[in-house]
Amino acid sequence: MSEHLSGLINDALHLSKDEETSSELKVKLSQTDTNDTALLLESVPIDERVLLWEALANHKKVDVLVAMRDDARIALIEATELEEWEALFIDVEAEVVLELVDSLPKEVLSIAYSAMDRLQKLYFSSAIEYAAQEVGHWINHNFLVLPLNAKVRDGVRLLRRDLPAHTDAIYLINRAGGFSYAVPITKIFSSPEHIHLVDIALEDYPTIHANEACHVAAKQVLLSNYSALPVVSADNKLLGRIDSKTASELAFEYYERQLMAGAGMDEDEDLFSPVRKSAKGRAVWLGINLLTAFLASAFIGVFEATLQQVVALAVLMPIVASMGGIAGSQTLTLIIRGLALKQVTSGNAMALLIKELKVGGLNGIIWALVIGVIAALWFNMPLIGVVIACAILLNIIAAALAGVCIPIILDKLNIDPALSGSVILTTVTDIVGFVAFLGLGTWLLL
Amino acid sequence: MSEHLSGLINDALHLSKDEETSSELKVKLSQTDTNDTALLLESVPIDERVLLWEALANHKKVDVLVAMRDDARIALIEATELEEWEALFIDVEAEVVLELVDSLPKEVLSIAYSAMDRLQKLYFSSAIEYAAQEVGHWINHNFLVLPLNAKVRDGVRLLRRDLPAHTDAIYLINRAGGFSYAVPITKIFSSPEHIHLVDIALEDYPTIHANEACHVAAKQVLLSNYSALPVVSADNKLLGRIDSKTASELAFEYYERQLMAGAGMDEDEDLFSPVRKSAKGRAVWLGINLLTAFLASAFIGVFEATLQQVVALAVLMPIVASMGGIAGSQTLTLIIRGLALKQVTSGNAMALLIKELKVGGLNGIIWALVIGVIAALWFNMPLIGVVIACAILLNIIAAALAGVCIPIILDKLNIDPALSGSVILTTVTDIVGFVAFLGLGTWLLL
Repeated sequence: MSEHLSGLINDALHLSKDEETSSELKVKLSQTDTNDTALLLESVPIDERVLLWEALANHKKVDVLVAMRDDARIALIEATELEEWEALFIDVEAEVVLELVDSLPKEVLSIAYSAMDRLQKLYFSSAIEYAAQEVGHWINHNFLVLPLNAKVRDGVRLLRRDLPAHTDAIYLINRAGGFSYAVPITKIFSSPEHIHLVDIALEDYPTIHANEACHVAAKQVLLSNYSALPVVSADNKLLGRIDSKTASELAFEYYERQLMAGAGMDEDEDLFSPVRKSAKGRAVWLGINLLTAFLASAFIGVFEATLQQVVALAVLMPIVASMGGIAGSQTLTLIIRGLALKQVTSGNAMALLIKELKVGGLNGIIWALVIGVIAALWFNMPLIGVVIACAILLNIIAAALAGVCIPIILDKLNIDPALSGSVILTTVTDIVGFVAFLGLGTWLLL
Repeated sequence: MSEHLSGLINDALHLSKDEETSSELKVKLSQTDTNDTALLLESVPIDERVLLWEALANHKKVDVLVAMRDDARIALIEATELEEWEALFIDVEAEVVLELVDSLPKEVLSIAYSAMDRLQKLYFSSAIEYAAQEVGHWINHNFLVLPLNAKVRDGVRLLRRDLPAHTDAIYLINRAGGFSYAVPITKIFSSPEHIHLVDIALEDYPTIHANEACHVAAKQVLLSNYSALPVVSADNKLLGRIDSKTASELAFEYYERQLMAGAGMDEDEDLFSPVRKSAKGRAVWLGINLLTAFLASAFIGVFEATLQQVVALAVLMPIVASMGGIAGSQTLTLIIRGLALKQVTSGNAMALLIKELKVGGLNGIIWALVIGVIAALWFNMPLIGVVIACAILLNIIAAALAGVCIPIILDKLNIDPALSGSVILTTVTDIVGFVAFLGLGTWLLL
């Protein structure tokens, strides 16, 4: 983080609602680029964020909004009066509005739509036919295209203009607007002017379908040898392209969502979301967890009489559950990654299960022995060592089984295993752990 | 996954050591591209993987090895005799050997080194000066460079050759080999041949330092407007470039490492690692978890007498720990992401803590009431409802405190909070949960 930015954050945290924003701060803000301004706004609480927003120059506001995370924008959008938007949307482009489409209220959206020119309106309408999870929503309409019969000299003329970033090819379309070929721009300059572009075009240029999932399309672009790939509709019409920058943004967003989903949170959860909103967003996950925790407790409750007689079982009980949970989450993570990388198939699932059961068995035996000996010594009671050792071994093996099967089944049901895999897994390992331990305890110790 | 590939996986799983690999399978393998072959090898157990490897054509072997994950390669490298390597490394490039440098034994590395030509040896020696975590290790040496006094006509001549993928600029260097300017190739073609390239060069072209961390450099390339960025040494010598494809691979690897680290696993853990190796790799994490689980048990042990008298406490105990753990991991995930995105600074840490404590307080009150009522009804014992409600509230607030402070402190100590944050957090929430619940129980129920 630059010193300029941390200085601004400090300044901002000392803003107060009643004072005028100092002209000094406004000058500093005007010297901050879009991305840093967005980061600054995200890094301060809501009240200060709104004050900074109001101190921003009008021509920067929409770009800063686009650069911010979805949830962090909300307070700013709410703080902006309906009349102000017209001044902010002068000459706005479809791509900008598409970025904001889920954040803006309907009335503001219609102001933005009216501010677009005819072409941008067309782009906008074609893009919102696709959901935000589909790559068609994020298409870049700024690209080079020529008809199938164009010659090298037409290509050269086109290339003399100001080129959009990440342009490495001219796309050729047929009369129906269908994508036909791509011609690398470097080839155009080194070819005689009178020949047809088709003759120097690449065969089998990769294309992306507009309803492809964003993260799949992003990977396709980023691991290709091109700076951008053309996007086509179901009937092969050329709609636009996805360049490596957009692809990176989509990929980064996807990975962040995976990381956040693991904790039952929305990728867009803002660092300074309003307390009530934030609490509500997380409550669902806490509620689901509570249900599974009560379920586990109900199983413990079955063994109340045993617990009363051998209180050591209550003391050691969490160890059995926790070791199962950790071992299971390791297998789960490996399988989830394997599914994402397409390494796991129905063909090798059984071989994987066998391997994970062996790993679980080996680690289970080792840790069962360690824990059994410690428990026996701690409570000076050899039989409790036997009980916990057997329960640990059983639970680690059950964890391996659950760690392989749960994500594969969820994936077959089209449920993202990164989201709900771990809560199901720990429910299984908690219950198996408690029942095995307390059940064996009842049998052997009473 | 293509049908071709799943078919091959099925074929492979029915291979046996004794039979000759069928010529039919060899034909199928020869029709499979490098990436799919790598995926195929990763998707089958070790024995079958070695059989497939031996059936591969020699000229494909090294490329397939490079495309595979580090751990998945090991068995294949071990299965290849020292004499065979010479045939595999004909005309090998430095980049290929650099990809394998951590996987190959020393003797094999020296065979590879001897197989490189003078220039590739030079590239190799310059790159291994940097560790695999530094971007200098992954530099691409295939780029266009001209002296500072070159003219447009020199540029045009250079561009007529076969260009490396992701080339969008010619780099200009001064006499000392220092990076000076970048000239976009599209500008070269549209400029008169006799002017100097410097006159059409871009000012302030971004460069990357060779000892920058890979994931930081990758983000810089991917979010820039260029297809590649030049990499310079500490004294500004131009060493090479990182293109968007390499950057994507580095970024994907980094995110995967984060996901795997959360479960205490190595990013390179192979789907079919040998059982013993895999068990060993995971045992450390299980051991750390065991220590924290015993620690929590020791705290429970303090209240043995209480548990014996009020066995309901033992039944409900895991609920308190689990709600704290979930609430804490939500805060932790948010802060870890904020640290990675540079949104969290020492300036706003206090404001964040206050907000998270409020969110924790609100969710704590709600869930404390819900759980308190259920517990009181379940055991028909109003006081136990009071005890668990207070403990839940306390633990969720402690979880918010820990969720903010642990990652910030770890980050200050230069420890990756994604790796060890969650194990420390759950230790805190387990202990606070058990002590609060059993302590309050001892005080109010006995």
